[in-house]
Amino acid sequence: MIEVVNVIGSGRVGSAVAARLRERGVAVRPDGAGLVLLCVPDSAVASVAASVEPGPWVAHVSGATPLAALAPHERRFSVHPLQTFSRSGDPAQLDGAWAALTADSAEALGVASWLAETLGLHPFELPDDARTLYHAGAVFASNYVVTLQRAATLLFEAAGAPPEALAPLMRRTMENGFELTGPVARGDWATVEAHRARIAETLPQLEHLYETLAGATLAVAT
Amino acid sequence: MIEVVNVIGSGRVGSAVAARLRERGVAVRPDGAGLVLLCVPDSAVASVAASVEPGPWVAHVSGATPLAALAPHERRFSVHPLQTFSRSGDPAQLDGAWAALTADSAEALGVASWLAETLGLHPFELPDDARTLYHAGAVFASNYVVTLQRAATLLFEAAGAPPEALAPLMRRTMENGFELTGPVARGDWATVEAHRARIAETLPQLEHLYETLAGATLAVAT
Repeated sequence: MIEVVNVIGSGRVGSAVAARLRERGVAVRPDGAGLVLLCVPDSAVASVAASVEPGPWVAHVSGATPLAALAPHERRFSVHPLQTFSRSGDPAQLDGAWAALTADSAEALGVASWLAETLGLHPFELPDDARTLYHAGAVFASNYVVTLQRAATLLFEAAGAPPEALAPLMRRTMENGFELTGPVARGDWATVEAHRARIAETLPQLEHLYETLAGATLAVAT
Repeated sequence: MIEVVNVIGSGRVGSAVAARLRERGVAVRPDGAGLVLLCVPDSAVASVAASVEPGPWVAHVSGATPLAALAPHERRFSVHPLQTFSRSGDPAQLDGAWAALTADSAEALGVASWLAETLGLHPFELPDDARTLYHAGAVFASNYVVTLQRAATLLFEAAGAPPEALAPLMRRTMENGFELTGPVARGDWATVEAHRARIAETLPQLEHLYETLAGATLAVAT
């Protein structure tokens, strides 16, 4: 469908995307590009888009950014790979991930679908005005999982337990289909209160987080 | 070391533990037991322990419960498998997990180590007075991961995105060594505020959780 893509940005996402396009036989270079793909920080999308000569398709890979940021281009769309990327540039990072496609015409959706499939992503459509909620969900599922692991590590270190013991527990929690076990699932509020009190003594910076999560667990996970 | 174990309780942990002991050639039955292993709810440990005729070793598998709950027994210890278990009773659930050993004599620690190794667990020692902090860490790494997944699912459903797209993201976040990416890592507070405002409009029950986690991410994960 498109033979040449101009990938702008060679960070975590841009480097993996460019490598995957080349693997699939798509040329990656500025001149003669049928698609300009902006893999730049969210805050730079609008200014970089404005600097692109109109003509080719223009798209971004940001989760939170609306299509309007691609003005003045009208041949535009977004493909957001729902994944966290290392700096390795390894295109295998795209494998197994899903991608949110946002487009405001059937033709644009066709190009977005071609790009997602060429990259090896499972596509789904996302309305432009739902991007912020969607991106907030992704933050819960990625960034905040990191926060829980760091909090658990601080508690294990304070207890004299090895933090590396946490990884098999976290993996199995996922593999078991996120079934809730533990004190909140059992309604064991004495244990929850004992945790809170001991955290308040030892790592008070985690007390509010522990309490908020206990309440949210009762509200959304039981 | 011990040829017969009396496993009391056949819930998630007890069923897997009994199956693994049998696999390893240890008899599991009440009579002639050298070890009585309490795999009962935390709140029942003390009363069940008190009902056991003194003589054999008595141990529990609870994360949060102190050794004192095993009174009046003095030949006592705890082995807590740091894992979340399904109801399947499959002993393979023990594979790869760590175990916290708590004991108040060298002899008891020896029996605890034998039990952990027989079950196929990686043992580490945990002081009795550190159990509450340790268990709170395990709650962050397991139960609260479930909470994040449920919150992310609610946001995806509200956005019209498929919740099954979250699993590859959560898995990779772990596989990448819990490296923090995303808006908090980038100091992109405009995106964090846009998330908060949109959550407040659409799923207000998640607003406080989102904000608390954003603050905790800045404090412990950046």
